[in-house]
Amino acid sequence: MTQIRFGSSLTYIVNQPTVFLFKIVAGWTPHQKVENESLTFDPLIEPETCQVGHDGNRIHRVVVQPCELNVNYQATVELTYAKDDPSSVQECPVAELPAEALVYMNPSRYCESDLLARFAIEEFGSLAQGYVRVQAICDWVYDHLDYTPGSTNTMTTAADVLLQRTGVCRDFAHLAIALCRGIGIPARYLSGYAANLQPPDFHGFMEAFLGDQWYLFDPTRLSSTDGLVRIGVGRDAADVAFATLTGSATLINKDVWANFCLPVHDGDPSSAISTA
Amino acid sequence: MTQIRFGSSLTYIVNQPTVFLFKIVAGWTPHQKVENESLTFDPLIEPETCQVGHDGNRIHRVVVQPCELNVNYQATVELTYAKDDPSSVQECPVAELPAEALVYMNPSRYCESDLLARFAIEEFGSLAQGYVRVQAICDWVYDHLDYTPGSTNTMTTAADVLLQRTGVCRDFAHLAIALCRGIGIPARYLSGYAANLQPPDFHGFMEAFLGDQWYLFDPTRLSSTDGLVRIGVGRDAADVAFATLTGSATLINKDVWANFCLPVHDGDPSSAISTA
Amino acid sequence: MTQIRFGSSLTYIVNQPTVFLFKIVAGWTPHQKVENESLTFDPLIEPETCQVGHDGNRIHRVVVQPCELNVNYQATVELTYAKDDPSSVQECPVAELPAEALVYMNPSRYCESDLLARFAIEEFGSLAQGYVRVQAICDWVYDHLDYTPGSTNTMTTAADVLLQRTGVCRDFAHLAIALCRGIGIPARYLSGYAANLQPPDFHGFMEAFLGDQWYLFDPTRLSSTDGLVRIGVGRDAADVAFATLTGSATLINKDVWANFCLPVHDGDPSSAISTA
Amino acid sequence: MTQIRFGSSLTYIVNQPTVFLFKIVAGWTPHQKVENESLTFDPLIEPETCQVGHDGNRIHRVVVQPCELNVNYQATVELTYAKDDPSSVQECPVAELPAEALVYMNPSRYCESDLLARFAIEEFGSLAQGYVRVQAICDWVYDHLDYTPGSTNTMTTAADVLLQRTGVCRDFAHLAIALCRGIGIPARYLSGYAANLQPPDFHGFMEAFLGDQWYLFDPTRLSSTDGLVRIGVGRDAADVAFATLTGSATLINKDVWANFCLPVHDGDPSSAISTA
Repeated sequence: MTQIRFGSSLTYIVNQPTVFLFKIVAGWTPHQKVENESLTFDPLIEPETCQVGHDGNRIHRVVVQPCELNVNYQATVELTYAKDDPSSVQECPVAELPAEALVYMNPSRYCESDLLARFAIEEFGSLAQGYVRVQAICDWVYDHLDYTPGSTNTMTTAADVLLQRTGVCRDFAHLAIALCRGIGIPARYLSGYAANLQPPDFHGFMEAFLGDQWYLFDPTRLSSTDGLVRIGVGRDAADVAFATLTGSATLINKDVWANFCLPVHDGDPSSAISTA
Repeated sequence: MTQIRFGSSLTYIVNQPTVFLFKIVAGWTPHQKVENESLTFDPLIEPETCQVGHDGNRIHRVVVQPCELNVNYQATVELTYAKDDPSSVQECPVAELPAEALVYMNPSRYCESDLLARFAIEEFGSLAQGYVRVQAICDWVYDHLDYTPGSTNTMTTAADVLLQRTGVCRDFAHLAIALCRGIGIPARYLSGYAANLQPPDFHGFMEAFLGDQWYLFDPTRLSSTDGLVRIGVGRDAADVAFATLTGSATLINKDVWANFCLPVHDGDPSSAISTA
Repeated sequence: MTQIRFGSSLTYIVNQPTVFLFKIVAGWTPHQKVENESLTFDPLIEPETCQVGHDGNRIHRVVVQPCELNVNYQATVELTYAKDDPSSVQECPVAELPAEALVYMNPSRYCESDLLARFAIEEFGSLAQGYVRVQAICDWVYDHLDYTPGSTNTMTTAADVLLQRTGVCRDFAHLAIALCRGIGIPARYLSGYAANLQPPDFHGFMEAFLGDQWYLFDPTRLSSTDGLVRIGVGRDAADVAFATLTGSATLINKDVWANFCLPVHDGDPSSAISTA
Repeated sequence: MTQIRFGSSLTYIVNQPTVFLFKIVAGWTPHQKVENESLTFDPLIEPETCQVGHDGNRIHRVVVQPCELNVNYQATVELTYAKDDPSSVQECPVAELPAEALVYMNPSRYCESDLLARFAIEEFGSLAQGYVRVQAICDWVYDHLDYTPGSTNTMTTAADVLLQRTGVCRDFAHLAIALCRGIGIPARYLSGYAANLQPPDFHGFMEAFLGDQWYLFDPTRLSSTDGLVRIGVGRDAADVAFATLTGSATLINKDVWANFCLPVHDGDPSSAISTA
């Protein structure tokens, strides 16, 4: 069991009445117990909580009049990730994939797995199957991309990244996801908090469906996977932007933080961590 | 009430053991009652039915050994679409959209609404709101695109189509969907059967969320919207391909047909048809 | 006759032996007489002058060892642009275009006129022909794009800009060029200095072939066309980047300036200016 | 010396007055002597010959009234290609490239060398330099692409091809060109006739600038490089389309043929062939 304390603080200048969809609170999952949670808006607004899908994603919707808006969130999670021996985790044949994983085989806005399938098959198609193959994809992404803040934007896709070989966490995750889908492994995008991430920020990472569950990967290697707190899960970053606005507002400050509550990690850092 | 009899027949040469995911059977929706349904495989195989999501999509999965595979499907649906006066159907403010519609605001593989938002706002942002605005988008798509079989492929996106101004039913739907999302109206893709479609084939069309429900549109004008039978709904065509294969097989024949059971249509062809 | 004094000063940190190709000196054209020209390198290096093509473009090549490199250029030009009444300038039929203009009908890296032809024909195909039609294209670009520094990068093309509706001078020129080519009018990109440009910088603009010569246009409206000094001409910005490096160096300072020598402009600001 | 007899026959239905630019006749180069040349139009039209650039490209322009148009071309060339030992051909430092080669370093419509530079440098940057490095690029292209007629279209670029891994001769050449430019080697596109090509058609291939001249490569391996007859040279296929039409006409027949006049080849098939 790992305990993480984390939070975020956002400040906007709201120029006209604006609808915000915030995706900043920890999702509810069997392996992630959320406690001591506090989400406050200043000026005081009662958000509407929208439960989207069946993966524990929680969206908070507020309608805000012109003002300076402060959003403060903090919580503690207890993570009870299962840890498996990587060499024991097999791939799941398409014939046996559960229905809810099938959609994560499809290409999406930022993960054009159809375009990258040929490359993925050529590069990874004949590797040893299982957790180790997804690990090989993540290693390839890590080895071939430069982590360069500012090198990409909200229109950058996995195909772009495969060519330009540079990006940030969302780009690393998008490329790894697209490559997994390209060889027939369901993969999905997670937004979240990462304990001890430097510099602190929201983080983007991924999961692949192996055996009979989802396993966590962070191709940037910027975090310890057992310090990852899930906000939301989706097909790619388009589904889990930390804020979506209809109206007009400017983000003028963003603070994000996450720390392990105890100095002790249990387990082998090379374990395969399953989350669902 | 409209009654439609329809079906499809597919023949594949299966070259090696192949997993098929078929999306060819009518979805289960409150407005679409499926009767007298028959789905058979020759050689005889018992398909597994996967219920994906909560929109009534049904996928049939079969694992097939090398052979000539025949898939035959037929059914009757009773459509009990509500029909509204278009001028009475308003848009739904983002602040009031139900949680399950929010995901259909996001860009997707073939509907890059983020890329097209500026164009959409410029062209349609100041038009009268409501059903009529989505109709104006569909009219624009109809007026500016040529329907040209073979002019696009499985990689063609809404942004491509906006420039090249030619496509088939899926492209027309993708562009209309992207433009709706671009101005903040949730929109989604439907695959289906269309009564009296010429030439007969599977069809692609769309729905926009207006008022408090989804309304049907076919920007190609190739079908009567009250003759549309839904197979599946998704973010775009990537979610509802009629067949997805893992293995190796070649489609050598495809027959699709759909007919009104009675010669009589009820209602005004210009009605707004809501489906959920 | 217009006289303009202008120059630029560039400072690089050169990290390893680097080959620079500078395209910063005024081109030699029949209408642009270059005088009092000085190009100096500190540390002292004698550049090699490469005359590329037959349009007066001059490239200066230097090989630089690790150091802080200062490049200083200044010159005066006398511009003797012909000025025509816009309404008298006709388009040139394809059957009569001179051979050297034909290449400027072809799509190029940043001006995918093939992709934009349908749009161009639809929007501008039936307008009155002649100088006024190119002016209508430039007006459309000006009206539909926002001039936003930082909104685009070196990979942004005319097709991107047509969708995202924002850019800088090079993007405005690329889109106008692509639209001209799309309706069959040869068009080309010019880099240069612009008198009184605010903020001062290198500028990008364009020419279209009309009648029997090239006419100048600046779709950004940031300059007076009779204050434009040509450095180089090419198919698009890829041909006339102010510096191309092989090696490793960092630009740490760039000053650009250009001023009319006399307070008096002759002629009507709405004249059609031909340059070759 | 190699002698090749070749030709082409094109038939169009011309629907309205149409300007044709034909690029089907052999270029004039120091190594390619054109003899016994005949270009005829039925109905009888005297074409205008446009000499474009200084590379020997010849364009024939005709204005044709509605009719069935037959174009017949045949000629013989004597090729006197220099043949070098591949291992003796070095790359030319950027500092020494002749001015006229510099433009072939720039990205172009179908060869986005800027996008592919990172990939090119990673894959080929540290290989042994010289002719053998360009050969390695061509080998990579041959090994990683499938030659699949119909798999690409006139909008397909090198970046597309790098992902989708399939194409025809123009796509193979575009990718090899973009990769060469990506590592700093000037490269250009050639259209032409290829002796004994199966099936017979116009062919697309490439040249790279090495040492102090251009060397021929055909990444498809469909031809013998000493059987290649150049029609035209350009930055990519956009510059040397065999026909460009303004008006309306439909190509209903195309015959292309090319044969060695003598059964004997001289020289080693693995020689490096320089052409300029």
